[in-house]
Amino acid sequence: MQDFLTSSAVLTVDLGALASNYQIFQEKTGSNCAVAGVIKANAYGLGLEQVAKALKKQKCPQFFVATLDEALHFRTFDKTSPISVLGGLFTGAENTYTAHQITPVLNSPDDIQRWQKHSLIKGQDKNKKLPAFLHFDTGMNRLGLSAKEFQALRDNSEILEGIDVQTILSHFVAADDWAEGWALELTIAQADLFADIAVRFPQAKKSLANSSGLFRHNHYHYDMVRPGYALYGGNPTPETKNPMNPVIRLDARILQIRECRKGESIGYAASHKFKKDTRTATIALGYADGFLRSGSNKAVVYYNNQPCPVLGRVSMDLVTIDLSGIKGKQPVQGEAIEILGPHQSVDDLAKTAGTIGYEILTSLGTRYKRHYI
Amino acid sequence: MQDFLTSSAVLTVDLGALASNYQIFQEKTGSNCAVAGVIKANAYGLGLEQVAKALKKQKCPQFFVATLDEALHFRTFDKTSPISVLGGLFTGAENTYTAHQITPVLNSPDDIQRWQKHSLIKGQDKNKKLPAFLHFDTGMNRLGLSAKEFQALRDNSEILEGIDVQTILSHFVAADDWAEGWALELTIAQADLFADIAVRFPQAKKSLANSSGLFRHNHYHYDMVRPGYALYGGNPTPETKNPMNPVIRLDARILQIRECRKGESIGYAASHKFKKDTRTATIALGYADGFLRSGSNKAVVYYNNQPCPVLGRVSMDLVTIDLSGIKGKQPVQGEAIEILGPHQSVDDLAKTAGTIGYEILTSLGTRYKRHYI
Repeated sequence: MQDFLTSSAVLTVDLGALASNYQIFQEKTGSNCAVAGVIKANAYGLGLEQVAKALKKQKCPQFFVATLDEALHFRTFDKTSPISVLGGLFTGAENTYTAHQITPVLNSPDDIQRWQKHSLIKGQDKNKKLPAFLHFDTGMNRLGLSAKEFQALRDNSEILEGIDVQTILSHFVAADDWAEGWALELTIAQADLFADIAVRFPQAKKSLANSSGLFRHNHYHYDMVRPGYALYGGNPTPETKNPMNPVIRLDARILQIRECRKGESIGYAASHKFKKDTRTATIALGYADGFLRSGSNKAVVYYNNQPCPVLGRVSMDLVTIDLSGIKGKQPVQGEAIEILGPHQSVDDLAKTAGTIGYEILTSLGTRYKRHYI
Repeated sequence: MQDFLTSSAVLTVDLGALASNYQIFQEKTGSNCAVAGVIKANAYGLGLEQVAKALKKQKCPQFFVATLDEALHFRTFDKTSPISVLGGLFTGAENTYTAHQITPVLNSPDDIQRWQKHSLIKGQDKNKKLPAFLHFDTGMNRLGLSAKEFQALRDNSEILEGIDVQTILSHFVAADDWAEGWALELTIAQADLFADIAVRFPQAKKSLANSSGLFRHNHYHYDMVRPGYALYGGNPTPETKNPMNPVIRLDARILQIRECRKGESIGYAASHKFKKDTRTATIALGYADGFLRSGSNKAVVYYNNQPCPVLGRVSMDLVTIDLSGIKGKQPVQGEAIEILGPHQSVDDLAKTAGTIGYEILTSLGTRYKRHYI
């Protein structure tokens, strides 16, 4: 804890491990496939700028964010790398995309019409088309053109006039749940549908696979894969050992050690009652820091390789933990407790909080001291 | 949506309503009681600096944060207002408190010893004591001195030598659950214990009540109340109508309207299947923005005074909602959907996500455009 005297907790982001994970994707997909970097949601909570720069050093050829504001943030430190907005062409903000060389992912007929209209305004040179990615929804029912809308495009080439469709995309519904029969079937059906669409866009590059998808089948790699979660150390293949390197570590300060008595309770609403005298520690993070309240009385943290169960409700700024199982050296006030690290992955912590590691990552708080190595 | 062309969602913070809430506490507690401002966790997600300045205009005489870093942040824009760190005296950072005139809340014998030692180093003038607040744990078992530690203080006045105990504090376990018998009993027991402690510190000011506590009994007001949640519009008395003014409003952009077909599914893991053709909208916020994933298939948002249930899983950046119940004018791409506002309070949204409004507030995301009125 030497390096964070004033801080309550420290988040360590290992940019070397991030680079190694990126290289795993490159090796897996080969030289004919680009590995894009999905850096939306502040690079899954790890820091947009630091992560983007680390990926650029690995020659990452394409970045994706979710919102236009994120793309504008990216442009404050990177004026040239290709960046694309998965959320589409924000209504009324068409000029901002062209002014900052941000490529929209066109998700709807409305997106397409506005980009086409914008190309007519912009296009003094008739041959100069506006770049765009096209997203086809093959089963998510979330963003992207439907099967019916695809047919309309196929039957009427004028719809895309003035637009340079650089890449076509789709997104898997359940590539992470592959071990379950229904998910396998659904993933194959989506891939088949995408293959049908792909043949209609011979000039465009194709991109289908997210973190999980790229591990499922080489046929899903196409021209570009779009890893996000696995880049940051999350397990893209939950049914088996995590092939990725852990990227983050989170340690929180012990604020106090307590000797609680049998019969007493702990925390808000007295949700845990002590059946015996118990030594506890109060540590300096809470749900305001992304240690989800759903981990109350369930989650576990670590001291000196040994688990310390969370007792009572997670508070806004504080978590109380059970030290009674600690053998050997006892923790003292001011020491660090491992929240995420060698003994607990984001996937592990997510399980005890009843969610997925993605939410653990994107909930990582702003009060941590962030340390990039 | 005119004012956020590039943004996915807009969080509006009504500083006037915040000021009105502050005045409600002043009126309720009277002129002999100070109303402190609890502005930890980035002022419960609303913005530390904006909130602190608004409270200062109301002559708020004392601020509380959770961590030392938060106090240091406060000192970047306010050099003089009294600020105190609830998390205690961070081990190894004693100098930082004195250098920036930050008052620690001493929670443990360890805190007291280190502050005393620091006072001996600092105190060239024997009569110049170092200021501190003392926190007594009356039932939380989280932070603060235990009953046994209180007895030690009482029996040995040297323990506090060199320390100017300005205020003594305690904190309620279940003042919000007052309607339930056990909570009422526990609250009364805590208050009794605090009263016993208080008589031993005739010189110090006393502070016991949080947002809920100050509504429960005038005897709990003492010299200072410490509202947090209710200041930001949360209901401090959940069993009855909210006496506070709503402070925030959150609107998110519609990215796409879809016509989903009977038999299709929506979102990750296909968790919702359509029993009939259904019009949906995909809106630009997700769990990365604090719209908790636990609200999947449960939470509700609003369009034109009408509820739109969330369908399928909440994604990182996106939520899909049911428009089939919308009567009259139909929503279109680019319009705003009310997440929090006149039709849904933070307490309402919390209920559908299986948590409390406090977690909804402190999870408010960083991708929103923030608009202070």
